[in-house]
Amino acid sequence: MAAAKHHRRATPQARGEAFVREVLGVTLAHLAEVGFERLSIPQIAELAAVNKTSIYRRWPNKDELVREALQAGMQHAAQAPDTGTLRGDLVELARSMATSAQSPMGTALLRIVLAEGSHPELRALANPTQVAANKQGPWVVLKRAKERGELRHDVDPSLVLFAIAGTIIHRILVEQKDVTHALISQVVDLVLLGAAAKRSS
Amino acid sequence: MAAAKHHRRATPQARGEAFVREVLGVTLAHLAEVGFERLSIPQIAELAAVNKTSIYRRWPNKDELVREALQAGMQHAAQAPDTGTLRGDLVELARSMATSAQSPMGTALLRIVLAEGSHPELRALANPTQVAANKQGPWVVLKRAKERGELRHDVDPSLVLFAIAGTIIHRILVEQKDVTHALISQVVDLVLLGAAAKRSS
Repeated sequence: MAAAKHHRRATPQARGEAFVREVLGVTLAHLAEVGFERLSIPQIAELAAVNKTSIYRRWPNKDELVREALQAGMQHAAQAPDTGTLRGDLVELARSMATSAQSPMGTALLRIVLAEGSHPELRALANPTQVAANKQGPWVVLKRAKERGELRHDVDPSLVLFAIAGTIIHRILVEQKDVTHALISQVVDLVLLGAAAKRSS
Repeated sequence: MAAAKHHRRATPQARGEAFVREVLGVTLAHLAEVGFERLSIPQIAELAAVNKTSIYRRWPNKDELVREALQAGMQHAAQAPDTGTLRGDLVELARSMATSAQSPMGTALLRIVLAEGSHPELRALANPTQVAANKQGPWVVLKRAKERGELRHDVDPSLVLFAIAGTIIHRILVEQKDVTHALISQVVDLVLLGAAAKRSS
């Protein structure tokens, strides 16, 4: 590491990181385009202009490569906004979720991940309860809200997140409409305040 | 019609209805198995043991056939429970939605309908805002609740349904877990009462 300070050429480590980033990015785009079944490591090597042997050295098979690509793709979702209120944090989380799910690549990946019924291995990879261990962001938000006394004690915090995520998925894939800022406010208010009229007692 | 009363053989109309029911049922099962792209009318004719010309006479193409099969498959979701409370009705609606979405054929159809990004015609067919016109059940439930004063006036009733449907879809396709009765109660309570702690003011 010390040697790296003395010249401007990339260190082996930096080159290694650039290689990983490039291959994972190309893998996600390729997956979004052709799906898991037709995903091909030689093709990814060609698209990324790297040697396929270098890919196999790090990722022995499609499962490993796709797992790491999907996890890397969700990294940015792992950030925990800290606006000071649960409502503000949930709006930020929902916006970032909607932005990635609504991009052409994001929607394609969502379809593939939800749909590949014939590929239990991909479904297992994509299961967010496995990813959840890495995905600290949303859980930090809920933990903080609980400490501030903003959450009812009898509510499962994961259900709050899943209801918001589910409504966004429904909007994009079922209703096939844009996730607007107005919708995000509405869904966050719905899960925080509920739809029931308050008793005037 | 008068003649039909005098013998036990099926009337042409009854035979026609049985034919339609059989073909639509086989179409849904075939769609769940092979997806829209590989769906074949001659194959459906063979599976249903009917003449393919009779199919083409009623449904000139795949789009028409699949549209009617999907609509028929959602018919039972069009019933409006009437338990006397919004909570009771939403629990009934969510259970019936979960039961059909969780059956092996239901899950396969859900995956196909959500996933067939490459088939805009199928996506258009499956768009529930088109189906909504037929699907009176849930809307009747919400209208009644509004009349009883059970719903906040500033809440979009469709969002209540879509949040419940979205959470169920998330449970089945993303978390890949069963939709239990406990989950249904929790999600209905969440959208009715909200997760926010009440201010003790």
